[in-house]
Amino acid sequence: MTDSVHSPSQQVQAWLDRFGAALTAHDVDVALTLFAPECYWRDLVAFTWNIKTVEGRDQIRDMLDSTLARVQPDHWQIEGEGHEADGVVDAWFTFETLVARGRGQLRLKGGLCWTLLTTMTELKGFEEKKGPRRIKGAEHGAQKDRQNWLERKTQYEAALGTTEQPYVVIIGGGQGGIGLGARLKRLGVPTLIIEKNPRAGDSWRNRYKSLCLHDPVWYDHMPYMPFPDDWPVFTPKDKVGDWLEMYTKVMELNYWSSTECQSAQFDETTQEWTVTVLREGRKVVLRPKQLVFALGVSGFANVPKVAGAESFLGVQHHSSQHPGGEAYAGKKVVVLGSNNSAHDICADLWENGADVTMVQRSSTHIARSDSLMELALGKLYSEEALAKGVTTNQADLTFASVPYKIMHTFHIPVYDAMKQRDADFYARLERAGFLLDFGEDGSGLFMKYLRRGSGYYIDVGASELVADGRIKLKSGVNIERLNPHSVSFTDGSELPADLVVYATGYGSMNGWVAKLVSQEVADRVGKCWGLGSGTTKDPGPWEGELRNMWKPTAQPQMWFHGGNMHQSRHYSEFLALQLKARMEGILTPVYGMGPVHHLR
Amino acid sequence: MTDSVHSPSQQVQAWLDRFGAALTAHDVDVALTLFAPECYWRDLVAFTWNIKTVEGRDQIRDMLDSTLARVQPDHWQIEGEGHEADGVVDAWFTFETLVARGRGQLRLKGGLCWTLLTTMTELKGFEEKKGPRRIKGAEHGAQKDRQNWLERKTQYEAALGTTEQPYVVIIGGGQGGIGLGARLKRLGVPTLIIEKNPRAGDSWRNRYKSLCLHDPVWYDHMPYMPFPDDWPVFTPKDKVGDWLEMYTKVMELNYWSSTECQSAQFDETTQEWTVTVLREGRKVVLRPKQLVFALGVSGFANVPKVAGAESFLGVQHHSSQHPGGEAYAGKKVVVLGSNNSAHDICADLWENGADVTMVQRSSTHIARSDSLMELALGKLYSEEALAKGVTTNQADLTFASVPYKIMHTFHIPVYDAMKQRDADFYARLERAGFLLDFGEDGSGLFMKYLRRGSGYYIDVGASELVADGRIKLKSGVNIERLNPHSVSFTDGSELPADLVVYATGYGSMNGWVAKLVSQEVADRVGKCWGLGSGTTKDPGPWEGELRNMWKPTAQPQMWFHGGNMHQSRHYSEFLALQLKARMEGILTPVYGMGPVHHLR
Repeated sequence: MTDSVHSPSQQVQAWLDRFGAALTAHDVDVALTLFAPECYWRDLVAFTWNIKTVEGRDQIRDMLDSTLARVQPDHWQIEGEGHEADGVVDAWFTFETLVARGRGQLRLKGGLCWTLLTTMTELKGFEEKKGPRRIKGAEHGAQKDRQNWLERKTQYEAALGTTEQPYVVIIGGGQGGIGLGARLKRLGVPTLIIEKNPRAGDSWRNRYKSLCLHDPVWYDHMPYMPFPDDWPVFTPKDKVGDWLEMYTKVMELNYWSSTECQSAQFDETTQEWTVTVLREGRKVVLRPKQLVFALGVSGFANVPKVAGAESFLGVQHHSSQHPGGEAYAGKKVVVLGSNNSAHDICADLWENGADVTMVQRSSTHIARSDSLMELALGKLYSEEALAKGVTTNQADLTFASVPYKIMHTFHIPVYDAMKQRDADFYARLERAGFLLDFGEDGSGLFMKYLRRGSGYYIDVGASELVADGRIKLKSGVNIERLNPHSVSFTDGSELPADLVVYATGYGSMNGWVAKLVSQEVADRVGKCWGLGSGTTKDPGPWEGELRNMWKPTAQPQMWFHGGNMHQSRHYSEFLALQLKARMEGILTPVYGMGPVHHLR
Repeated sequence: MTDSVHSPSQQVQAWLDRFGAALTAHDVDVALTLFAPECYWRDLVAFTWNIKTVEGRDQIRDMLDSTLARVQPDHWQIEGEGHEADGVVDAWFTFETLVARGRGQLRLKGGLCWTLLTTMTELKGFEEKKGPRRIKGAEHGAQKDRQNWLERKTQYEAALGTTEQPYVVIIGGGQGGIGLGARLKRLGVPTLIIEKNPRAGDSWRNRYKSLCLHDPVWYDHMPYMPFPDDWPVFTPKDKVGDWLEMYTKVMELNYWSSTECQSAQFDETTQEWTVTVLREGRKVVLRPKQLVFALGVSGFANVPKVAGAESFLGVQHHSSQHPGGEAYAGKKVVVLGSNNSAHDICADLWENGADVTMVQRSSTHIARSDSLMELALGKLYSEEALAKGVTTNQADLTFASVPYKIMHTFHIPVYDAMKQRDADFYARLERAGFLLDFGEDGSGLFMKYLRRGSGYYIDVGASELVADGRIKLKSGVNIERLNPHSVSFTDGSELPADLVVYATGYGSMNGWVAKLVSQEVADRVGKCWGLGSGTTKDPGPWEGELRNMWKPTAQPQMWFHGGNMHQSRHYSEFLALQLKARMEGILTPVYGMGPVHHLR
């Protein structure tokens, strides 16, 4: 190897040239010589029509053997300049396949590929009508019986779902459904979004009073229309709601509010769905080809069975049903759980003058919001990142370029730094009896989110209340039973209670499938989310990607969409391309569908 | 001069250094040696607290003598690279004054200043809370009796205009009032926008069916929140309306719709306005310090007195009252006028099956939309310009950098090219009897717009109907009188008519002042718009800037805002800074208030 005498850009282009030539020649053996012994190739739709990471040369060989003839990749071209740091050379690049254009990222170690990301950006012949491709809008020249924009829009809105069937129905009109709807609108895919609340954004408005987004603004943009540059760092919930409502209108989404899905069945003969919805109380049957569940990763409430619950004379509800603390001034409240919802609800209750006890059953990871922003997100999502030219899309792709298998190794040093930085804070929490962890391997918050979707709190203030006892804490115990006016705990203690809140988290999104389609289909697709890391609440075997998210499932023409605002924004792009390709009849053979290991 | 051996950037920085040193030394004589014999300095608020062009060394001396001691300019620093073309070197630069930061543009000829632009961008200590200055949004940490964003917003909305007085009232909630309102919101200036229609955007929605913006999308962005990149080139009117409505909400503007201004009086004692409005039928008195008229440059209808008008048994109305052609299928219509409105209305009537005659009293300038985009706007406002890095703000500043005195010399070659390019088209129009011009000096559309606000049509299709006789034409005549069922013309001819539309244009915006304040105040401030070029409908003397627009008028604390979407967007910035400075008690001595030469 003589790469050391070449610039990072030259090294990358040389690698791409050799790689491209090997693929064009269908010479997989030569292609594999370009990969290091430890290597990862993450593909978002471009090669696999799947969201798939292949790990090591053998898996890469298998993937190439299966896909190369059809994909016909070429035009591998570095984009911008390459960089070198700590012995790793990296750069962006573009490429094409027979049917699509793509963008990717390459990391070389010693001239060989360590990580490769390939993503589809657009289907040839089906590009978004943006920039130079935008429509004219006016039809210049005179014509009799002209229909204007408003007439066409009104007519289409009336027809879709009645005389004309949408190609896609999205169940759930929160930020996930709305963002995906915008992507599909741009691609010309007739789509109907179903939302049970009266207005877009209500799922945010309905939440407790003091809620603001826990992630900062740079992380939270919707597709296509970024927040204005004076948007607050942490958006208040009603402002998020108003933005989503406005976004839905401006993007001209077909959005049925006050509409609840009752059931959905797949007809094997016609290969379409029968989706029964109640629209403002009136039953409507929709017949889309594709059905997307966008009801939130945290949408299906987990309520534990507690002995004596029926005998309790106070109020008890799951955190998702909690109306906020205003009605509970002076009341005695027990909150079961110690993750995000539990903390937020405890703080809100305390602010409203309730006497609150948090019940911590097992250890929790706490990351202070400021520290998280500076240490974990700042390099990609911050004012400083923007000033360095890291656009939101660049940040998203960078995030996506790290294979899940080694992602924890990127995160552990961040959380080591956090431990040091906030040592006093953590010591105070521990003195109050709070059980802390940083994940089993010390990889912190985002890995916990990916693996189990729970087990942490982004501290925006509640931890101080716990540390100084304003929120009372019972840790290392569980509720044993409810009595008419009190709660008994596993350590034999008892507390009077007017309200019990179960901040006990959520089940897998396929719970919605069980409810709306059938238990059989729910079991066929299996659990959503989680990587199979073998850590708590994320049993193996290793999957390499989040289960069932944004990619084909074992139930044809059924999809799951969700995640935080960054994930919804970014992965909606790939889900939309998969749906568009199917609508246009492009062949989409899926590589690498795995078996289902877990049902829920 | 040894400038020829230096790069354009070096020449510009050297000039700025010498200029800055002379100004710091208050040595106006030395400063003047840096200007060419033909020279122009256009200042937007930074030096003059006015919108003012000084022309030639003597005027520059007078301006510097009056302002220098107070302004204390320094930190003259080139921004980006200088360029040289056709013997002119130009570059952007930044500078500071005692109270503000600014941005400017310099054109050198032979090392001496030919044109200089200085603009204020922000007041020190009162910067917009954007980017790194943005607010946090969430108040982390727990606090009892917390008010959230929605509560604060709702409470402020209820108070403003009732228990709390706005600092500024803007009469007119079209794109002008809304854009200015957004600027003021960012600067923390309590502002109330008054709009007679029920919803923001209705002034667009209420117009005739086929209307789309005549200017292309790149020209039309609102401040702070650009249209998404799939926005059509020519926005349909209802889509503009929806965007403005959404923008008003997202920007959290205080916007009273269904509210009409009845009268406004300035109280010399309290130095505030008494503005009486009808809000949803209920009288409310507002007491702002500053009053802005944003009712549209084309807001105050000009209706000619026509003999026999009272005897006419059909319908007659001004173009601004015209509901669109749908009700006039099969009817005979005479449209008096041959500018934009006349053409649009004739085409719409023809599309709806009316028998239409256009009455052209005098020659009209026609510019085909495509040609206008490519030849006149393309360099600054287009996809190509964006690809070259010309942002909207850069384009606006470039536009602003050309002094009005010589602007026609920039435009004449463009319209010469247009004449050639569209020679066939113009020949066909002339064969149909249409009287054409390109402005008295051949400078075309935008100069006509600035000088008289009329006299042209941007062709989006109607001209072909005129050329081939589908729209009938009577040119070089006027209406002599109306009869019960017909119109008689000055050439002795007569046409049967069911409808007469007066597409006869608009009076000066100070007509609104006469109506709402008093004739005396209207006469004191005089005519709005126009440059005093001495061409038709723009009598001299030369003013150097548009009369009364976006700058102090002879009536203290009263302002005019308006113009096309580019002007509204750009000049709202400078009007907002003038208002903010006054609210904060910053000294704002105005240099160069001219006498009033014309009343209307």
